Amino acid sequence: MAQPGSRDGIVHGGDLGAARRLFPAAPQPWLDLSTGINPHAFPLPALAPGCWTRLPEEGERRRVEMQAAAAYGAVPQARCVAAPGTQALIQLLPRLRPRGRVAVLGPTYGEHVTAWQAAGHDVRVTASVDDLAASDVAVIVNPNNPDGRTLPAAEILALAGRMRHWDGLVIVDEAFADVMPQVSCAGLLDAVAPILLLRSFGKAYGLAGVRLGFAITADEALAGQIRQELGPWAVPGPTLAVGLAALGDRVWIEAMRHRLASDAARLDTLLAGPELAVVGGTPLFRLVETSRAEALFEHLGARGIYVRRFDHAPNRLRFGLPGDEAAWTRLATALAQFPQRRASKRA
Amino acid sequence: MAQPGSRDGIVHGGDLGAARRLFPAAPQPWLDLSTGINPHAFPLPALAPGCWTRLPEEGERRRVEMQAAAAYGAVPQARCVAAPGTQALIQLLPRLRPRGRVAVLGPTYGEHVTAWQAAGHDVRVTASVDDLAASDVAVIVNPNNPDGRTLPAAEILALAGRMRHWDGLVIVDEAFADVMPQVSCAGLLDAVAPILLLRSFGKAYGLAGVRLGFAITADEALAGQIRQELGPWAVPGPTLAVGLAALGDRVWIEAMRHRLASDAARLDTLLAGPELAVVGGTPLFRLVETSRAEALFEHLGARGIYVRRFDHAPNRLRFGLPGDEAAWTRLATALAQFPQRRASKRA
Repeated sequence: MAQPGSRDGIVHGGDLGAARRLFPAAPQPWLDLSTGINPHAFPLPALAPGCWTRLPEEGERRRVEMQAAAAYGAVPQARCVAAPGTQALIQLLPRLRPRGRVAVLGPTYGEHVTAWQAAGHDVRVTASVDDLAASDVAVIVNPNNPDGRTLPAAEILALAGRMRHWDGLVIVDEAFADVMPQVSCAGLLDAVAPILLLRSFGKAYGLAGVRLGFAITADEALAGQIRQELGPWAVPGPTLAVGLAALGDRVWIEAMRHRLASDAARLDTLLAGPELAVVGGTPLFRLVETSRAEALFEHLGARGIYVRRFDHAPNRLRFGLPGDEAAWTRLATALAQFPQRRASKRA
Repeated sequence: MAQPGSRDGIVHGGDLGAARRLFPAAPQPWLDLSTGINPHAFPLPALAPGCWTRLPEEGERRRVEMQAAAAYGAVPQARCVAAPGTQALIQLLPRLRPRGRVAVLGPTYGEHVTAWQAAGHDVRVTASVDDLAASDVAVIVNPNNPDGRTLPAAEILALAGRMRHWDGLVIVDEAFADVMPQVSCAGLLDAVAPILLLRSFGKAYGLAGVRLGFAITADEALAGQIRQELGPWAVPGPTLAVGLAALGDRVWIEAMRHRLASDAARLDTLLAGPELAVVGGTPLFRLVETSRAEALFEHLGARGIYVRRFDHAPNRLRFGLPGDEAAWTRLATALAQFPQRRASKRA
């Protein structure tokens, strides 16, 4: 089950402050493999001074939204709303709906459950698509984090059709779909299917600090509500400028998809071993299963390598991609030094 | 009265797209005097690549919040919550309170009325502090935009005291208090007075594109609610880095206060004339009153100078500060070319 409860209770990757507190004696700098953020960032474009000094203009925001809709392959009639990060959208969606039954396909990324619970909805985490259809709002992370499970777009459309009678809504969080574009529903949205896509800019483009996410839907009224909730100037000027340049560069993202697929395969080779199996993931992260997950987490942490563990799945660890040869070597060395169980029993 | 109604109905300064549509033949580039944003921006610090690529860390956000609380002279026990712009706070505050009576001291900045109305509250705009005391939530922009009216901090504290029995809340939007620090309530907050301050980073530091604002209150529960609503990673990494550098530079802001006061006096001299009176403002903008406001707006617009007009006060215009000598000369020339009424009658 995803972690329910207060927001403060959710552990996220990427917080090196937490890593430092856990492993105060670890060698610096940290090798942060705890996120699914691309280590090969889109190169920052030159930014005009005005993007910092002026209020971001509506026309600038609209250009980025059009660029995003095109980059994501959205149908022409889809509405695209830019937000300061997908998390800002996850925060506001529960307030747009009357309190009702919300089903989250899980286990998955914890913030969905937390946000809907905090707004007073009746939330359940389920592994069954039938449970999703019987709810007022269904939430699907596709591909899923952390296990990479994918649901075919056709199945999601069928689910939306089954929910239509209920004024239902299917939210599909496609945070990692940039690197697996074949799973996206963006090209299949239509005005009657109650589907809202969430897209995250920072992960695939390696620019998580800029905070940029999009809500995409063919439901014009829903898009309008989201825009109204966000209010004016929600996305910073530098963020819009970076987003416009990156989302317009089809060559970069296409080459990156190949590079990440190759990196992911290399990581699988490095991770696989007699006591450790790669059980899922996306090209941006790999999920491993081992009965010695806690020991491996401690072993790596003591060497300044921070990976993601899961309270709800203590035998699993998630590894992001090393960003350069030094990082690959550091990870390979640390893994080679991890004592085999036979060896540790002898000690 | 402030403009009520839908958000789409609010006209704001700073949108040169709108200026271009109004005056398609105006000479380029535009001289934008339609905002109260400081034209002398704080010089951007060098930004570490990590602020773009990594998720912003909690520790980074906390450092900026501490820096802001110190820069604004907040009492030590005050809680300071960073947001991606004050507007994001204006959007979320109405959702934290049960529906009730909200009084806004006005006419003033239109977004407060719009946000509380959109959330279903019963909103009135009033010129009377007694009306504020009789409401559940009172909103005061101090110093006020656009007329620069100030309410003494002692009077705001007294108001908060009168509202205390009602579980009331006084929201003081100090968006322009950086350049008039003597009006701020930040040094007088205490745990029992129900006061929430809003501070805007972008105006005084001339960096409106970065989107940074703060909620400051001695009410720990309220601060916690705001933080919860914003969710994690609400403020971008580059924004945090710029805010940390700027809010820590006391020498810059002190020198800027003197410079802006001098600029504002210069602007008053330029604007004053037989048919035009400067009736208010702050060091970041001046409000003029003239029966020929519409003609002057058109005259300046045709010359590529965009100022702020007000639907609710057709005889008023707001002027921001020119940023360099070329801009001063351009404004002076355009004003000198504005035909006197006597001359235009003759024509």
